[in-house]
Amino acid sequence: MTDDRIFQLPTREIPKKWLNIQPSLPEPVPPMLSPADGKPVPLEAFLTLFPMGLLEQEVSQQREISIPDEVLKVYSLFRPTPLIRAKFLEEVLGTPAMIFFKNESVAPTGSHKPNTAIAQAYYNKKEGVKKLVTETGAGQWGSALALAGAHFDLDINVFMVRASYEQKPYRKIMMETYGAKVQPSPSKDTQIGKKMLEDKRNYPGSLGIAISEAVEVAATSGGTVKYALGSVLNHVLMHQTVIGLEARAVLEDLGLYPDVVIACHGGGSNFGGIAIPFMEDKISGKRNTEFVASEPLACPSLSKGIYAYDFGDSGKLIPLAKMYTLGHGFIPPSVHAGGLRYHGAAPIVSLLNSKGLIRAEALRQKETFEAAVLFARTEGIIPAPESAHAIASAIRVAKKCKETGEKKVILFNLSGHGHFDMQAYEQYFAGKLEDYEYPEKEILKAEKDLPKVG
Amino acid sequence: MTDDRIFQLPTREIPKKWLNIQPSLPEPVPPMLSPADGKPVPLEAFLTLFPMGLLEQEVSQQREISIPDEVLKVYSLFRPTPLIRAKFLEEVLGTPAMIFFKNESVAPTGSHKPNTAIAQAYYNKKEGVKKLVTETGAGQWGSALALAGAHFDLDINVFMVRASYEQKPYRKIMMETYGAKVQPSPSKDTQIGKKMLEDKRNYPGSLGIAISEAVEVAATSGGTVKYALGSVLNHVLMHQTVIGLEARAVLEDLGLYPDVVIACHGGGSNFGGIAIPFMEDKISGKRNTEFVASEPLACPSLSKGIYAYDFGDSGKLIPLAKMYTLGHGFIPPSVHAGGLRYHGAAPIVSLLNSKGLIRAEALRQKETFEAAVLFARTEGIIPAPESAHAIASAIRVAKKCKETGEKKVILFNLSGHGHFDMQAYEQYFAGKLEDYEYPEKEILKAEKDLPKVG
Repeated sequence: MTDDRIFQLPTREIPKKWLNIQPSLPEPVPPMLSPADGKPVPLEAFLTLFPMGLLEQEVSQQREISIPDEVLKVYSLFRPTPLIRAKFLEEVLGTPAMIFFKNESVAPTGSHKPNTAIAQAYYNKKEGVKKLVTETGAGQWGSALALAGAHFDLDINVFMVRASYEQKPYRKIMMETYGAKVQPSPSKDTQIGKKMLEDKRNYPGSLGIAISEAVEVAATSGGTVKYALGSVLNHVLMHQTVIGLEARAVLEDLGLYPDVVIACHGGGSNFGGIAIPFMEDKISGKRNTEFVASEPLACPSLSKGIYAYDFGDSGKLIPLAKMYTLGHGFIPPSVHAGGLRYHGAAPIVSLLNSKGLIRAEALRQKETFEAAVLFARTEGIIPAPESAHAIASAIRVAKKCKETGEKKVILFNLSGHGHFDMQAYEQYFAGKLEDYEYPEKEILKAEKDLPKVG
Repeated sequence: MTDDRIFQLPTREIPKKWLNIQPSLPEPVPPMLSPADGKPVPLEAFLTLFPMGLLEQEVSQQREISIPDEVLKVYSLFRPTPLIRAKFLEEVLGTPAMIFFKNESVAPTGSHKPNTAIAQAYYNKKEGVKKLVTETGAGQWGSALALAGAHFDLDINVFMVRASYEQKPYRKIMMETYGAKVQPSPSKDTQIGKKMLEDKRNYPGSLGIAISEAVEVAATSGGTVKYALGSVLNHVLMHQTVIGLEARAVLEDLGLYPDVVIACHGGGSNFGGIAIPFMEDKISGKRNTEFVASEPLACPSLSKGIYAYDFGDSGKLIPLAKMYTLGHGFIPPSVHAGGLRYHGAAPIVSLLNSKGLIRAEALRQKETFEAAVLFARTEGIIPAPESAHAIASAIRVAKKCKETGEKKVILFNLSGHGHFDMQAYEQYFAGKLEDYEYPEKEILKAEKDLPKVG
């Protein structure tokens, strides 16, 4: 084992293929259903929202899909990202475990989101699309699509949840710097937005409302505008597998294989991205790797949700997906890990969870910030509140190793940095961090509200 | 020439020695003088402020100085930093030049400053110091010292210019996350601070005032507290040579040598850091590399200043240094490149400039932000307003190459990212950026106010 700390593959070793887990799953991903008749929605029905190139990937049963040269070129802006051995954290924990993290925070926008934004922009451009519309909460996804739009000469319109738009202006300016147009949601530019604004309580907005607004704009554009989603969908998770593929390549060079793979879980894309390239070996029984999906106790979709068909957005514009859900009516409390405030979960991750292939772990906000500050003072990087969940779960495993003496290899994904989340740290230091816990009785209401299909 | 874009040396190739330019200079760096008698200040007189380890480096005539293992270990947090070929920028400019940049923005605090902060913390710790006190303007330096303090178990107190403290709270929170104590300057905790606060115009503070406050705390501590400075001094520039040494090593591997080396210039440390490892060849006549120091037209110390002995701080607590100066009474207008708002310049850079070895270039704020936005939309990284000066100068050279057809190799230092400077971008997009120009007649006043020594 070398003494190196940062492991960086050269540009030429960016993965040339995405890994599609679908053919390797224990059973097929349940299809999306129409809420009207409960029947599977034909692929063509999605063409108002997505280009065929992405829809084909969404249902593909091909194990590997070549990454186009144009996408590889833009990936070279920041890929391969470094794999880092967290030696300083190991030392302060006194653990015999080896902790590695994949540093996706080095992407120019500060998170893993460009991995799919670049691919989505490319396939849209290829099919003649001129404009993409999307939603963003804290802004990680909107920034990523804005950067991708600059590279593929696409107009990017972002509906940003108004609470974030007003409280976190820096992300908005970042998107504008990349050339995107950003507007607060709910807006008066859509029917859904106008309807939502009739109830003043909707004024601060939510991710569910912003999705509905963006979908409406694309669906009513007559084909010139398409929609882009930053997580949840099968093709999004597949684009993110570059994370795990690079990590696997470096660990193989070191003669290592992770015993535990950890990522935070919101919609499921960064979790899928790092987990999928190691998951096949688990499904086939070749390896007994532990997979930990780390989520907020305030919004514990995988830990406490129901595995059922549900709506993905507030406006009920998107077909039903089978997923772990806390109910489409559940509005998660405003924890600082905004990217983890989603009532549902990716259908692929949900299927894996239902088969017992993943262990979901729900954490209190306070534990994640304690982990984040320890990480900053040892490894230097101030993590995004979302990524702090992965760090906290990694620390739990490392501490257990200290008790048992096990020299486990821990791999977690540092999905992003916290430079645009410093307010959250300020609240933490001021002792003002609220610790929300999902009220278990809510799940009964969620169950009652589920659409009657599937 | 390979097609790779990101060039990353492994951890084990972090430079093992700093390069001290002093023995290779055309003539010795003029000594610091006492304002009282105009005589050189003996080294021991500085012991109230700095540990002997750093003072020895300040006057050393040894060409190379070994980097202690403890420093190398903490450098491995982020070093070696990547050298990146700016292919996307080259393409959009249509230049035959090759543009490389050293990406110091990947340091956890977002700039090159930890290169010297880590070294300074180490030498202080080694000599039994418990606490370091310093000043910071926009916060880059304070963050770096805070991070270094976390690694060497030192208390860090930062006097932050009040205007920044109030307008840019995120940098303050970053320092606190690393465990530092931050207070606004002028403060009531020092004699200088109290005196300054008697005049309400001093309430927003300045770097000069903050330096004086920090120096006062150290000088009156009875030896337990020392002071740390983030630029200007010889040992600081030497610590920063890891930037240029790494860049040189990668370029050598590629069979290249830069025709032009560019960095922004404030106090001189990032410029010295990238320039010095190529400067010896210029001094000896072996190479005819062009060195460009890019500074704001609002504070053009090297371009318009006088080469003379002057005070480095407002409180006149620090001995006189021979440098290019706009006068110690000059308060630079509040351009967004806060790190470049210094009336003086590093003695080493000043000497090189006086010998015609450097070309200083003063740029309007608007040109630098145009360059920054073009860089963000092509290379992805949103640069700090300081670093945007280097980018703008690199673009000037690349455009000239397009005219002449020259295939020059351009190397510039990306000293930091702009994640904590997004307000500046907002003002730029809103057309609210003011374009200050140094009033040439001011230099007559500066000349008159110079101390009568040397």
